[in-house]
Amino acid sequence: MANASAGRSVLSRIMQVLGTFDVDSAFLTVSQLSQRSGLPLATTHRVVAELEQFGLLERERDKTYRIGVRLWEIACRTPGALGLREIAMPYLQDVHFSVRQHAQLGILQGHEVLFLERLSTRNAVVNVTLIGGRLPLHASSSGLVLLAHAPGSFQAEVLASGLVKYTEDTVQSPAHLRRLLAQIREQGHAVGSGFIHPAARGIAVPVYGLKESVVAAISVVVPNDSAPALPTVRLLKDAARQISAALQAAYLPPGGPQSAGGGKYRALVHSSRNSMEFLEQHRKDHPL
Amino acid sequence: MANASAGRSVLSRIMQVLGTFDVDSAFLTVSQLSQRSGLPLATTHRVVAELEQFGLLERERDKTYRIGVRLWEIACRTPGALGLREIAMPYLQDVHFSVRQHAQLGILQGHEVLFLERLSTRNAVVNVTLIGGRLPLHASSSGLVLLAHAPGSFQAEVLASGLVKYTEDTVQSPAHLRRLLAQIREQGHAVGSGFIHPAARGIAVPVYGLKESVVAAISVVVPNDSAPALPTVRLLKDAARQISAALQAAYLPPGGPQSAGGGKYRALVHSSRNSMEFLEQHRKDHPL
Repeated sequence: MANASAGRSVLSRIMQVLGTFDVDSAFLTVSQLSQRSGLPLATTHRVVAELEQFGLLERERDKTYRIGVRLWEIACRTPGALGLREIAMPYLQDVHFSVRQHAQLGILQGHEVLFLERLSTRNAVVNVTLIGGRLPLHASSSGLVLLAHAPGSFQAEVLASGLVKYTEDTVQSPAHLRRLLAQIREQGHAVGSGFIHPAARGIAVPVYGLKESVVAAISVVVPNDSAPALPTVRLLKDAARQISAALQAAYLPPGGPQSAGGGKYRALVHSSRNSMEFLEQHRKDHPL
Repeated sequence: MANASAGRSVLSRIMQVLGTFDVDSAFLTVSQLSQRSGLPLATTHRVVAELEQFGLLERERDKTYRIGVRLWEIACRTPGALGLREIAMPYLQDVHFSVRQHAQLGILQGHEVLFLERLSTRNAVVNVTLIGGRLPLHASSSGLVLLAHAPGSFQAEVLASGLVKYTEDTVQSPAHLRRLLAQIREQGHAVGSGFIHPAARGIAVPVYGLKESVVAAISVVVPNDSAPALPTVRLLKDAARQISAALQAAYLPPGGPQSAGGGKYRALVHSSRNSMEFLEQHRKDHPL
């Protein structure tokens, strides 16, 4: 099937098909993919066959398709997602082990917060955060931290776009939200008690990258009870400080006194000190 | 630039560009992408522009490109990668906390083991495992477990394709490897002492899915010293049993007495019990 407009439209069709998969619908038939993507059935068949050929889709025994492991493998080369998560992980695990509820890492993506990691325990409080999932900025504590440190023009856009209401406690008025953002900047943390679910409280702090810019938020989701937030805030601030230092060390030129070991691997890999030194010195001689 | 062969070759060029990024080269210029992918410079420019438009590549200030967060976001819809990792994670964290070295989850992908997760600590022993990275089956303990449970024809292919030598202790002879695989099947675990690095020992056990098939391996990488392996093997076997049970519960039809909560979300999300019930009951009424 020749197509004179080639390039752009092929990728746009591919993205339409891939974008149809969601946590609601991880397994889809070609008909469902066609219906939900709005692409004609014949086109969908062709795109699906191509994607399957490259391992980007996998066919199940029941003839549904799911997104392929090969796509995930390529996605492990994202400094902005997996790389950041690798750097933050040991500190996030410490927070998780202390709090024994949910501990998460989120970044600003579009007008939402996108979660790069969520560590949970079986008996933790209700929490709607999904890995690779998004939440509105005004409703989640991580989102509030990211919004509080965003430029004024961006804040104005978010405020103008409407504030989804989850519970009686979700911030609804732009004036209230502006006051809350000022308070978050001043105190250095956000607390959202029952903003998304009455039983849950989010507590978040910013993670700074180079040049004092906020590049992420780490947060916990804990029961919305009478427990004081401050001990948890201190725990999160300690972890955020360590993540910021690790992030800066990972992006300084290799070999300097403040730089992390691991050479060019540091943007994607954060393993033990010995492993990073080994990677830096030996990977070239002995490709893995 | 119209191209009459359209579809397949467009995706093949896209894959050539995306496949050029690696942990060695997370940031690349268009010229480097062209050189390494073997695509003409003009074609590379066009493919890069398209990928950037959809967020699959991100342009840095120094004009290099990196793989985009949007690609990672789509990859979070992979039941075979992120989904499996979500199910295994709480148990893998328990192993990691007990061993305080590296704890990892790997699957068979092609003729190699692909690692879906690696939890590490700062002072852990040297370890070459990367998240999203691959290792040869005969050299890594996880790979040995997966190979031991693979069909005979697959084993024959792997044995015939040559056994890369990392250290003096890497298994080199097909006969030796066959004896080792038989032993692994009998004992239910693999120990690789110094197979990849003299200082490191890998210990791995299989994770069973439905119908007694081996779907993954969990492993630790610990110092290659005189410490007995059996206590760690027991720890891993306990975790693997729990992961297998969680995996089976996640793939039984929703609502049954043995099924995990969370309805159709279970293939991708494993959060706390309350969160899974909430997702199952409320996500439809109140889209997140």
